[in-house]
This record gives sequence, structure tokens and C-alpha cells, in this order.
Amino acid sequence: MKFCSNCGDPVVRRIPPGDNLPRYVCDACSTIHYQNPRMVVGCIPEWEGRILLCRRAIEPRHGYWTLPAGFMENEETLAQAALRETLEEANARVELHDVYSVLSVPHVSQVHVFYRARLLDLDFRPGAESLEVRLFEEAEVPWDQLAFRTVTTTLRRYYADRRNGGFRLHTEDIR
Amino acid sequence: MKFCSNCGDPVVRRIPPGDNLPRYVCDACSTIHYQNPRMVVGCIPEWEGRILLCRRAIEPRHGYWTLPAGFMENEETLAQAALRETLEEANARVELHDVYSVLSVPHVSQVHVFYRARLLDLDFRPGAESLEVRLFEEAEVPWDQLAFRTVTTTLRRYYADRRNGGFRLHTEDIR
Repeated sequence: MKFCSNCGDPVVRRIPPGDNLPRYVCDACSTIHYQNPRMVVGCIPEWEGRILLCRRAIEPRHGYWTLPAGFMENEETLAQAALRETLEEANARVELHDVYSVLSVPHVSQVHVFYRARLLDLDFRPGAESLEVRLFEEAEVPWDQLAFRTVTTTLRRYYADRRNGGFRLHTEDIR
Repeated sequence: MKFCSNCGDPVVRRIPPGDNLPRYVCDACSTIHYQNPRMVVGCIPEWEGRILLCRRAIEPRHGYWTLPAGFMENEETLAQAALRETLEEANARVELHDVYSVLSVPHVSQVHVFYRARLLDLDFRPGAESLEVRLFEEAEVPWDQLAFRTVTTTLRRYYADRRNGGFRLHTEDIR
């Protein structure tokens, strides 16, 4: 951030009175520009034990596999974001179950949230941001070609919980 | 947003190619300015059955009671945000348990997250953003003077779960 989005004057970075962190501040119009973490929301679509993954057609991690997920939009709920991203990336319709993982990724200022989900039909196909979409048995998951550590963590916990007969919420930090 | 924070030129609002939502776009430097929901993170500090609430010294909802919570900062984890806000608003030290509620508030583009927590000592006092901090028995909770519906929902679920002998994650939308 170099310029004030409210008045167009240059901003400076300093700690405002009463605050304890540096912010981008505009001395012309007195606006303080706070910056906050973003949420990435998606799901784990399951069909008869297999899980749907998407191969990314965009950077970062072009060509790597991911669970359907993406940035939550303003005026959306978490569930709406998960359903929208699954539709956009895989043209797939799911029924959402509980929130399964809530993962803080502080080095990129993100929080990733994945729901458990039941894939409703097999009529899926790659969206504009995917090269390929397919169902994987656990033994087929391309662990060394997964796009993000939050996806790896979520899938590892998911398969472990499924073997142990019960799903529970996983809240972890990815550093 | 009226001006580009990258180059200072005026922005326009329109749907970029390949997108399906209007964004603030700068035609001078081609930056697309995405805007995303913010997270509010806090906890439910319990001491021998009583719960710590803070009376707000700031707007919005000046004078109303809330659980300690606030906006998550960049480069923070959810747990760090909950601990920091509890310290800032109530000078209170807690041990966090599980995430208890994850509430979407789409009309203000926020997601509120509350942890269950154990207050570690009684050496708390109001921070700069609180008028008063005290412990409440369930029967004493000022339900008609709570600051936010996410706080009301979280406390109602909490007391119901506690009566029923088990806490579980609550994911809800507040509309």
C-alpha cells in the first residue's frame, strides 16, 4: 500500500495513537488502513469412500492437486463460500456436513476452513481454474503433488479419523 | 475505496475478465483490489462456573457487555488472536480449549470465532477498550445488554451444552 484509497494521497506506516502495531495511515484525511487475514474455504467431497481433488490450472502451485477451496467473498457465509468454490472449481454439487479443519497459516495471513461433504452426483468436470478433477481412493492420493500444506494436513487427519471411526474438529497452525 | 492504493489513480468498480463479481479495478496500473471478510476472534473465559464479560468502552455498542474478542491481525494464528484480545480487553490470562463457535455474519462480512477457555487467575481488570470486567453466574448474565448477536448465540449454546454435559462445535449463520 502506497496511496490512500480514500483520498489518493501517499500513506505512511506508523503506530497510530492508542494502537500497538504499525498501520498504513493517511495524514491528509486521517484514515487508518487496517489489514487483516483472509479466509480460504473449501470442502472434502466424498463419494463411496473416494475423495474429489482438483488439479490447479492457475498459480500458485499450477499443476498440483488440491481440495476445492478458495477465498471467501464479502457478504458470504462460510457454507456459501465452500459450496461456491466447489461448484466453480469442479462443477460439483455437495451436501456439507460439519466444519472439519480450521487451520491458521500466519506466514501468509490466512485461515483455511474445510467442511466434510458428500458429493451428490458424478456429474463433475473441471472449472476454469482446474486442469483435471477426479476421485481418489486413499492409496491413490498424490501426496507429493498436493498444492498446499493445509490440504495435506486436512486429508491426513481425515483418513486417520475415518480409520478410527469418528470425525472431530481439527484446529492447527501451519508454520 | 476511491483511489488505487498502489498508484494513487482513481479506481472504477466493474467485473474483471474471468471473474463474476464487481471489484475495484485500477485502469492505470491494472491492480484489482479484492475485499474479503474479516475475522473476529475471542474466547469464553470460565472460572468455577462463572464467565468473564467486558463492558465496552468503545463504539460500536459502547456500554454493552461482550466476551473478550476482536479483529485478528495479519501474521497471527487464531489462538494468538484470542489470547491477545483477552489480555488487551480484560488483562486476563486464559488457557484455550477447543474452538467452540464459528459464526458467519454476512451482512457485515465477518466471521466470529470463540474458543472455550479457562481463566488462570482472578487478577483481571479493564483494558483501554473496556469500562468494566467481571465474572457472571448464568443467572446474572445481562442478556438484554449484550453487545453482539454472536456473543448471545455463543453464550446460549454454551450454557445449554454445559447443562447437557458436553460441548460441541457450533457453526451457524447470524443474519
